[in-house]
Amino acid sequence: MNNVTKFQISKPRSEVFEAFVDPEKIGNFWFSSSSERWEQGRNITLTYDLYHAEVNIDVVEMVKDEKIVFKWGPREEEHTVTIRLTESDHHLTIIEVDEDGFIESDAELISKLLDNKEGWVYMLTCLKAYLESGVTSLRGGLLK
Amino acid sequence: MNNVTKFQISKPRSEVFEAFVDPEKIGNFWFSSSSERWEQGRNITLTYDLYHAEVNIDVVEMVKDEKIVFKWGPREEEHTVTIRLTESDHHLTIIEVDEDGFIESDAELISKLLDNKEGWVYMLTCLKAYLESGVTSLRGGLLK
Repeated sequence: MNNVTKFQISKPRSEVFEAFVDPEKIGNFWFSSSSERWEQGRNITLTYDLYHAEVNIDVVEMVKDEKIVFKWGPREEEHTVTIRLTESDHHLTIIEVDEDGFIESDAELISKLLDNKEGWVYMLTCLKAYLESGVTSLRGGLLK
Repeated sequence: MNNVTKFQISKPRSEVFEAFVDPEKIGNFWFSSSSERWEQGRNITLTYDLYHAEVNIDVVEMVKDEKIVFKWGPREEEHTVTIRLTESDHHLTIIEVDEDGFIESDAELISKLLDNKEGWVYMLTCLKAYLESGVTSLRGGLLK
């Protein structure tokens, strides 16, 4: 089962793509840091200093400025995240994040889907604020 | 069944409260306009120009700078939204939005909860960007 979130950002898709793959940029809207530049076949360590958290992702597919596919999560419930970028004539990028791998019979399904949705909407709004307005201070606002 | 979203905003709670109740301010982060100042007992019409949408809410309870409770939605599934504001010593406001009234047996429950979560996280991030950084251009980025 999957969870899709879709946003528009008034920037060319090359800028949106670089925001994810360039380790100098990710800290402006999502994780604090990325161990190296995202490339197909690489295992990347992402850290989130505020929560003392570390996450590993496997970048399984990448098409420059168009698509990033990575896997993350525990072995018993590995999820695949597909980020797709499409650009209109007017330097407006549509970004779609599709996370797949939720187990329908899971008793925690609803809360997992809601946490997931919360995380993606928050990250994408922070990304929009960073790219369009240069605001990099929105992270850490979401509480449990 | 309810859906809770919780955020922190680095502003005094009086400023967060005013952002909702003052019809001059709501357009900076949420609906385009509000028919009048929110007060307990009033029915308010909210418009969202981009989507040509109009929504009516009944403000059933209000405690200045602390709490706003309103009802909205169709008669067959009216929801109650409770917005609670608490302030720490450091002019940091915790805002909690609790929407209650989802019907557990509804075949569309999961998609309704996810849409609802999406809407609140988006609005709250836009509110944070507006109050902390003066950014008012984030609305309209969420796509279906």
